Amino acid sequence: MRMRLKLKTVFVLYFMVSLLGLIYALMQLGQRCDCRGHAMSKDQQISQLRGELQKLQEHIKTSELSKKTDVPKIYVITPTYARLVQKAELTRLSHTFLHVPQLHWIVVEDAPQPTPLVTDFLAASGLTYAHLHKLTPKDRKLQEGDPSWLKPRGAEQRNEGLRWLREMGAAAEGKEAAALEEAVVYFADDDNTYSLQLFEEIRYTYRVSVWPVGLVGGMKFERPVVEDGKVVRFHTGWHPNRPFPIDMAGFAVSLRLILTNPQARFDGDAQMGFLESSFLQHLVTMDDLEPKADLCTKVLVWHTRTEKPKMKREDTLQKQGLGSDPDVEV
Amino acid sequence: MRMRLKLKTVFVLYFMVSLLGLIYALMQLGQRCDCRGHAMSKDQQISQLRGELQKLQEHIKTSELSKKTDVPKIYVITPTYARLVQKAELTRLSHTFLHVPQLHWIVVEDAPQPTPLVTDFLAASGLTYAHLHKLTPKDRKLQEGDPSWLKPRGAEQRNEGLRWLREMGAAAEGKEAAALEEAVVYFADDDNTYSLQLFEEIRYTYRVSVWPVGLVGGMKFERPVVEDGKVVRFHTGWHPNRPFPIDMAGFAVSLRLILTNPQARFDGDAQMGFLESSFLQHLVTMDDLEPKADLCTKVLVWHTRTEKPKMKREDTLQKQGLGSDPDVEV
Repeated sequence: MRMRLKLKTVFVLYFMVSLLGLIYALMQLGQRCDCRGHAMSKDQQISQLRGELQKLQEHIKTSELSKKTDVPKIYVITPTYARLVQKAELTRLSHTFLHVPQLHWIVVEDAPQPTPLVTDFLAASGLTYAHLHKLTPKDRKLQEGDPSWLKPRGAEQRNEGLRWLREMGAAAEGKEAAALEEAVVYFADDDNTYSLQLFEEIRYTYRVSVWPVGLVGGMKFERPVVEDGKVVRFHTGWHPNRPFPIDMAGFAVSLRLILTNPQARFDGDAQMGFLESSFLQHLVTMDDLEPKADLCTKVLVWHTRTEKPKMKREDTLQKQGLGSDPDVEV
Repeated sequence: MRMRLKLKTVFVLYFMVSLLGLIYALMQLGQRCDCRGHAMSKDQQISQLRGELQKLQEHIKTSELSKKTDVPKIYVITPTYARLVQKAELTRLSHTFLHVPQLHWIVVEDAPQPTPLVTDFLAASGLTYAHLHKLTPKDRKLQEGDPSWLKPRGAEQRNEGLRWLREMGAAAEGKEAAALEEAVVYFADDDNTYSLQLFEEIRYTYRVSVWPVGLVGGMKFERPVVEDGKVVRFHTGWHPNRPFPIDMAGFAVSLRLILTNPQARFDGDAQMGFLESSFLQHLVTMDDLEPKADLCTKVLVWHTRTEKPKMKREDTLQKQGLGSDPDVEV
């Protein structure tokens, strides 16, 4: 009896050892040799390795976070409108958001009613969302052929998102209301590109947080310039003396601040480049801005733009009755 | 007595399995980075950092392993080249791939050596990957001002990916080799948009699977036309009588087929629109094509293109010595 027990213990031990060996072997599979560094100085190597290490640590922190539910919520307001690339854009955006814990997506269509495309897309997305709609009045809308900068796009939809948040805020009680105190609001257009780290940076925003935005305004990046931990001016190529020369993708606002300042909204009649300022000047002064992304030295979001697809052959084929099946959703 | 004998047999079996695992792990340890052995003296700091880095990478891989492991692998070959939107594109693409179990990313840079940007990006991506590079010869490269359709882009890089797969295939033995028999290869450019469903469609490919591609070739979509479960022709606006009028994003090939047809490669000198055919005609006939995505009635991938960002203000500011800090990675 004693003998058998011992045998069992040894057996279990071997099982664990063999399992560890196998897991290690599996992990090694597919890992490639790192052949860089031939021409690199030791100092360069060390700094590069440090950088890689830091990035991995951040990655792990992010993925550990995905299990957490006790972190402040991020409400992301995304205006969207029907166009050929809409479903593609929403698709890849949703893949990013699916990695972010406690993200609540507020999608606001520029439409008289919710469209089947967006409705079905959201239902299948796996995300927590609110699906709103608000048609831009005709006189405020870009007309065919207008340059995209003539009128700000998405102002009405962002205001509708704010309205929804305030309605929700007014109805919240107890624990729910306390949770809202900590939440943050971000305006994420559906064509930009967002790193996962961005969301962990903005999650803890006391009033208004700011950071660099890549590939915006005819520049490699725009950013707040930070001195002694304070934003002192802005690196931008255009009207640096606007109240807040910040792109929509470059700031987040605490929900508390939005709820306690019901007058704060986007002015759809604002001059080009002044839409962000029209909203922010109700909420904050430059002195209060909280710099994120390593004191605004890292680009964690890119103002990418997707080309409008050419439909020349489609048009030709449609005239011949040979166009793409309109029943197939693109 | 019987009981004890059985236990012994199991015990011996486990002993062998554990030994194999350990031997494999030890072999891997010895192999690591023999390419770096060169004339470099082994600074303790470097080796320590490398050790830490490796541990973290293993940590990440272990948590990735918790995903499904009993499904065929998907090897995704992505050619990429340095440009302003490169990091943004790779970032959102990686967010998609992170959702796909058993995806192995083969990233091939069009560069004389691996760039720090892609190297660091991949190390922090959380994905299983191979990082390759292959410079396109100058005479095959698009020159400044050439229209993008003049020469096929990425042919050399895709061939380099194929070379890597064949090398891996030749080295595989036993269970590993058996797993490769089931794997599938997909060529995913870094600017397209991929639904998650696409990968589950293509995972089970016996020879060559095909499906519609949205927003390509001046059309809402191109697609194989299926009758009685067979591909009989192609819905496309251009040269429908090419051998395979299919965009790169519209097919996947079983790895087995690639390994048993070593002559199959992309012809970098192929006429416009014939690059896909130059590869596929070595592997399959139209009759063999396996229609996916509900008999090619669903669009699950979009040929999106990202605008080249304008750098007009950046150029102006740089002339004044006020350009964006070149040390900030975009």
